[in-house]
Amino acid sequence: MSSRTITVELGDRSYPIVIGRDLLGGNFDLAPHLAGNDCLVVSNETVAPLYLDKLLSNLSTCSVESLSLPDGESFKTVETASLVLDKLVSSRANRDTTVIALGGGVVGDITGFAAACYMRGVAFIQVPTTLLAQVDSSVGGKTGVNHPQGKNLIGAFHQPNIVLIDTATLETLPDRELKAGLAEVIKYGAIADVAFFDWLEQNMPALLNKDPAGLAHAIGRSCELKAEVVAEDEREAGRRAILNFGHTFGHAIEHCQGYGEWLHGEAVAAGMVMAAELSGLDTVELGRLRSVIEAAGLPVGPPTVGAQTMLGAMGMDKKVVQKQLRFVLLNALGEATVTSDYDEARLQQILEAAD
Amino acid sequence: MSSRTITVELGDRSYPIVIGRDLLGGNFDLAPHLAGNDCLVVSNETVAPLYLDKLLSNLSTCSVESLSLPDGESFKTVETASLVLDKLVSSRANRDTTVIALGGGVVGDITGFAAACYMRGVAFIQVPTTLLAQVDSSVGGKTGVNHPQGKNLIGAFHQPNIVLIDTATLETLPDRELKAGLAEVIKYGAIADVAFFDWLEQNMPALLNKDPAGLAHAIGRSCELKAEVVAEDEREAGRRAILNFGHTFGHAIEHCQGYGEWLHGEAVAAGMVMAAELSGLDTVELGRLRSVIEAAGLPVGPPTVGAQTMLGAMGMDKKVVQKQLRFVLLNALGEATVTSDYDEARLQQILEAAD
Repeated sequence: MSSRTITVELGDRSYPIVIGRDLLGGNFDLAPHLAGNDCLVVSNETVAPLYLDKLLSNLSTCSVESLSLPDGESFKTVETASLVLDKLVSSRANRDTTVIALGGGVVGDITGFAAACYMRGVAFIQVPTTLLAQVDSSVGGKTGVNHPQGKNLIGAFHQPNIVLIDTATLETLPDRELKAGLAEVIKYGAIADVAFFDWLEQNMPALLNKDPAGLAHAIGRSCELKAEVVAEDEREAGRRAILNFGHTFGHAIEHCQGYGEWLHGEAVAAGMVMAAELSGLDTVELGRLRSVIEAAGLPVGPPTVGAQTMLGAMGMDKKVVQKQLRFVLLNALGEATVTSDYDEARLQQILEAAD
Repeated sequence: MSSRTITVELGDRSYPIVIGRDLLGGNFDLAPHLAGNDCLVVSNETVAPLYLDKLLSNLSTCSVESLSLPDGESFKTVETASLVLDKLVSSRANRDTTVIALGGGVVGDITGFAAACYMRGVAFIQVPTTLLAQVDSSVGGKTGVNHPQGKNLIGAFHQPNIVLIDTATLETLPDRELKAGLAEVIKYGAIADVAFFDWLEQNMPALLNKDPAGLAHAIGRSCELKAEVVAEDEREAGRRAILNFGHTFGHAIEHCQGYGEWLHGEAVAAGMVMAAELSGLDTVELGRLRSVIEAAGLPVGPPTVGAQTMLGAMGMDKKVVQKQLRFVLLNALGEATVTSDYDEARLQQILEAAD
């Protein structure tokens, strides 16, 4: 079977993203990527029954413990991260233990954060099984959990040893989650690659039909774009912030609804349209963005959570510097910029859609 | 007033350790070392009444919040770290907020860990007010909290922007804590600088009398030695482990007693004698180590927690690699080595002192 490898270039912490079919089942040998012989596989109650045995058969030469977490964004808490830490302690994991996250973004974020904190950091592997996790959250080392007052407020930068993407796992992914993942795929085109955006406009029906070649291309190009940005600015001192396009609005939507009402990708989809409107993007390009998001079956505007509620929630957003809001805006499709220079009246107007 | 500056060389994360008298009260301007204009000072119920106002007067140009934690090692938990995180969230701290730890090692470790986790890492300043924190825990970026099953099992490497050591704070330090701090001072001599060890033998009475010049020298030389080791091996891949001399036994003592029974420095003092015995150090040098520890009013042997209990506790120690115990041993005074090649029979014999 063919697989494709993209490297995230971070000096002595560089790592491969390996993308292919049936990698879990034996088309890829994961054991050499472990720090030692011991590992803990962390999954959740939805994914474990589908893929844990496959992964374990791939690790038959290792000493493996496993843990299944409850499923859902509402469990992305310090308390759940503590369950992973407790399991590491009770299995007497040491500094050579590798923690493997098998699941979507929530599993990856929690597990990566626990790996970052256990003994001040042990090795970590991402095996993302949702499109969203494959194209976004598993790559780049952002880990963390939510605080009751804000998303991802507690976390760490902790790069994995490897990201293993088995595209066959998408076959069991619910359509709604596939679509949510496509929001982040569209994001990459919108912020950094207009040719990829064109391709997405052409191929959205194939992607929604889970066409394997189409999905492989979409995942690969998304990972390439993310890897480039992360290599340039690992800790988000500058350019990496463009990856948050749509996320200031999106996080506010999620926060106002309570996490888990809309999927993250759905909130980001609406947030991208709002951010494009705030950008004053030319109407043809704005129309194209809106159309491709609609074609992916995603929302193009916020739910009715209230404009002022949303504004308040944005005040708690991590992208606030010196209490001034910063936004990722588009100069054009494929060209993003981070700025606190935006039209306040237009922001108010856009938020009114949430009233 | 004179002050002395030692630099911890870590490339773009290098930082100064500034040592002097009355630095808190205005002999040093801390504000330029903040990331932005906002800060949160975290202290505890014992230290805050003594030194918080002094520090606040030093930060009068800044926007300052403060938080007082309960005092004691038993509060060095994830729950207490969460109090700091909650305070950061409720004060709407942002990425330019600086978190300042004012207090001993427990306050510094908890606060640093919270700073490491808030928004995946915000700026952090150490203002240690105990000898132990001044010579050890405030320097080098180790932060963390205890797990019910083991000390410092949960944490992060997070270097401060600056370590500000006001030696005048030692005037209010209880004698027992002064002595506990001297254990770590003796450690530096024992593992890395026999001339400093000689000096400590000569000057122990002056140090116990809180002679300002003596304490300033002891703190300065300890910080220099620690800074050198940390610069060479920030993440303890190798040589930094020598700083754990006496700590494998010491942590086991603390764990078996329950944290807080003996002070950390007391447990390390006994642990150093045990580690020196395991080293097969020549009897004259072993006698010198034992004598200087006794002269500092510190224990030279373990409490009666049981040999097997201690061995079990050591199995959970972070310094275990591949389930094999590693120890920091002395070839001679001033010369330490990290090894898993030790005499098991002698280990059993040494542990019998705990029966």
